Amino acid sequence: MPEILITNACFATMTDPAGYGLRDNAGLLVVDDKISWIGDMIDCPDIEAVTHIDCEGRLVTPGLIDCHTHLVYGGDRADEFEQRLEGLSYEDIAARGGGIRSTVTATRETSEAELLRLAKPRFEQLLSEGVTTLEIKSGYGLDSENEIKMLRVAKKLGEQYGVRVMKTFLGAHAVPEQYIGKQDDYISLVCDQMLPQAQHEDLVDAVDVFIESIAFNHAQAQRVFETSKALGLPVKAHAEQLSSLGGAVLAAEFNALSVDHIEYLAEEDVAKLANTVAVLLPGAFYVLGETCLPPIAALRKNDIPIAIATDCNPGSSPLHSILLTMNLACILFGLTPSEALRGVTINAARALGLQNSVGSLQAGKQADLVIWDVEKPSMLAYQIGLNPCAAVMQAGQWRKFPDGGFA
Amino acid sequence: MPEILITNACFATMTDPAGYGLRDNAGLLVVDDKISWIGDMIDCPDIEAVTHIDCEGRLVTPGLIDCHTHLVYGGDRADEFEQRLEGLSYEDIAARGGGIRSTVTATRETSEAELLRLAKPRFEQLLSEGVTTLEIKSGYGLDSENEIKMLRVAKKLGEQYGVRVMKTFLGAHAVPEQYIGKQDDYISLVCDQMLPQAQHEDLVDAVDVFIESIAFNHAQAQRVFETSKALGLPVKAHAEQLSSLGGAVLAAEFNALSVDHIEYLAEEDVAKLANTVAVLLPGAFYVLGETCLPPIAALRKNDIPIAIATDCNPGSSPLHSILLTMNLACILFGLTPSEALRGVTINAARALGLQNSVGSLQAGKQADLVIWDVEKPSMLAYQIGLNPCAAVMQAGQWRKFPDGGFA
Repeated sequence: MPEILITNACFATMTDPAGYGLRDNAGLLVVDDKISWIGDMIDCPDIEAVTHIDCEGRLVTPGLIDCHTHLVYGGDRADEFEQRLEGLSYEDIAARGGGIRSTVTATRETSEAELLRLAKPRFEQLLSEGVTTLEIKSGYGLDSENEIKMLRVAKKLGEQYGVRVMKTFLGAHAVPEQYIGKQDDYISLVCDQMLPQAQHEDLVDAVDVFIESIAFNHAQAQRVFETSKALGLPVKAHAEQLSSLGGAVLAAEFNALSVDHIEYLAEEDVAKLANTVAVLLPGAFYVLGETCLPPIAALRKNDIPIAIATDCNPGSSPLHSILLTMNLACILFGLTPSEALRGVTINAARALGLQNSVGSLQAGKQADLVIWDVEKPSMLAYQIGLNPCAAVMQAGQWRKFPDGGFA
Repeated sequence: MPEILITNACFATMTDPAGYGLRDNAGLLVVDDKISWIGDMIDCPDIEAVTHIDCEGRLVTPGLIDCHTHLVYGGDRADEFEQRLEGLSYEDIAARGGGIRSTVTATRETSEAELLRLAKPRFEQLLSEGVTTLEIKSGYGLDSENEIKMLRVAKKLGEQYGVRVMKTFLGAHAVPEQYIGKQDDYISLVCDQMLPQAQHEDLVDAVDVFIESIAFNHAQAQRVFETSKALGLPVKAHAEQLSSLGGAVLAAEFNALSVDHIEYLAEEDVAKLANTVAVLLPGAFYVLGETCLPPIAALRKNDIPIAIATDCNPGSSPLHSILLTMNLACILFGLTPSEALRGVTINAARALGLQNSVGSLQAGKQADLVIWDVEKPSMLAYQIGLNPCAAVMQAGQWRKFPDGGFA
């Protein structure tokens, strides 16, 4: 039985709902794939044949969690990014074939093997920053074959890298071109065919819907949620990103794991989100030049857990750094560094329904943790574009460890 | 004589003042430390014993240039960053010893060897993104001994990594505590003692002054510029960052290499900047939550070259990524991706007085270049937090090259 004892660290356990849950002079014992004990060294259980890791004062956090990504896709949108900055209007760009439909076309045209190859650098970048759990959505296929292709790639990424990947079915991401004006028919296809087929292949951990004037309305989302419920699948929603349609409240009525974006969520509706997680996506806010802030004060007042995520996607958030996401959340949304770290650990775990197994350093949880070349947790959100990740343990195995250790 | 021929690339030569200067079907020949030829393959000179690098369609750019950094310093300001987000006022933070003076204290207390050790991860991060030339300022010593200590560290970084480091003396960065109310006396010390001593040790490539109400006034800056001129040193200025004091125009009258920040520069003064470079620093704009934009349209109209830089420093811009700087400049300032790339190549070279030797892919210039795992230059500013740098050549030597080449 491999046992690993980690000592002489600044442990940010993330067990304190209002802070880092810091522990000094503590030890953390890993047995097999789990944290078997964390406590003051004076109480350390008698152990033999243990590998001892002296962190020399370094920060140790739970493995980071990116709870909202679209990182499997074909093509890129760099041309569109450039055209917009060169002064072309959204209409001109759409006329040239830009926007989400260009990603749908490219994703459909790209083979499963090639989608996997293209996703790897994005995935590896997140892993290099200590991510041990991440969510990947479908949503650029918009038909059974291509949605399933995307979810298979997501699954393979998790398997090939030994990383926990949660697969979210987002068939109701956009209206396919041939269904414009016939959105209800497309929702029928999603509910009657696409979602059941994807679930049949064991590719769905949760179901997401984009509720917005440019996507799906309240009644359509409700149909997807009801179908998901009947299939025993938890739901979540892209809601109140561009306007206030009541999508977040609807999702909460279906016990959604999370409501994501929510810049336009009305303050008086925040109390209705009890039992869900507010996932803020500062990358999209930044790239789109949004100015309407999510209702942070109301979320705090109502004790709604706040998570943050990269929203990694080729259009509104080509962001591949969970550390930069923490900084963006602090600078643009005014989160504190401790809120930002909870947002990528325990609250991100909640947004994926995994709060009992990951997201904090507690006995009984998976031994997912990161050792950082910094001495205090505020450094993670403060430094921009620097990656101090020194070691990563996933389920009790070192995925990254410095040659020669920390001596 | 080692000769290297690079072909089958998308060359962004940066020789076009309004674009990338793209060349396809071209070749680039390196002899010793220089680019000896670039042109259509059909005109390729007869060469023997050449190493042939087939880039398989990858983008090749000049080595990137970060023309404004303060990356040598002691301590950090993460606590201050956290306190501000937790609601403490600037006054409270100053009372707790925060602000630039905390960095001055920490830098003075840190040995030369330790400053070097601390600067290395910051420096290596920039190098990992294809930076081949960078500027490092003093300015946290504020006395002869400590300013010289900082500049020695800057010089050593360049020597140890084989990278071109330009050393800027910034003794007039802030008023040391014991000189508050006696700024003129401190400027006398800068001009009569600190600057000549630093120059005597061959540690000064240029002289910078922070012209601002919280730093030095017009007359004090003028004294520093006159002293620099007498010593044969080019000047530059931190100007119009927080208010409009005429610092940029003053610096331009002294043929400044660059005027940096300039958010508050009046449009009507832009024409007076002819022969200098406008260095925009989007990291500080972002971190400080600044809302006043630099006069971009007027800079374009008057053909003032625009450079961009990380401003890497522990307070207002703990930013360590030149690629992210390009993205910030596009998103926050509305630069085009091609302006952003000129801003970290040819125009950054101008801001350091190096436009005849680096900053573009032209025969006769230093063979500083980067091969990127992307096919078009817009990808560099578009992708956030992903580093597609595949190979770096500095002065004809591969500093980074993929195992097994590009095959």
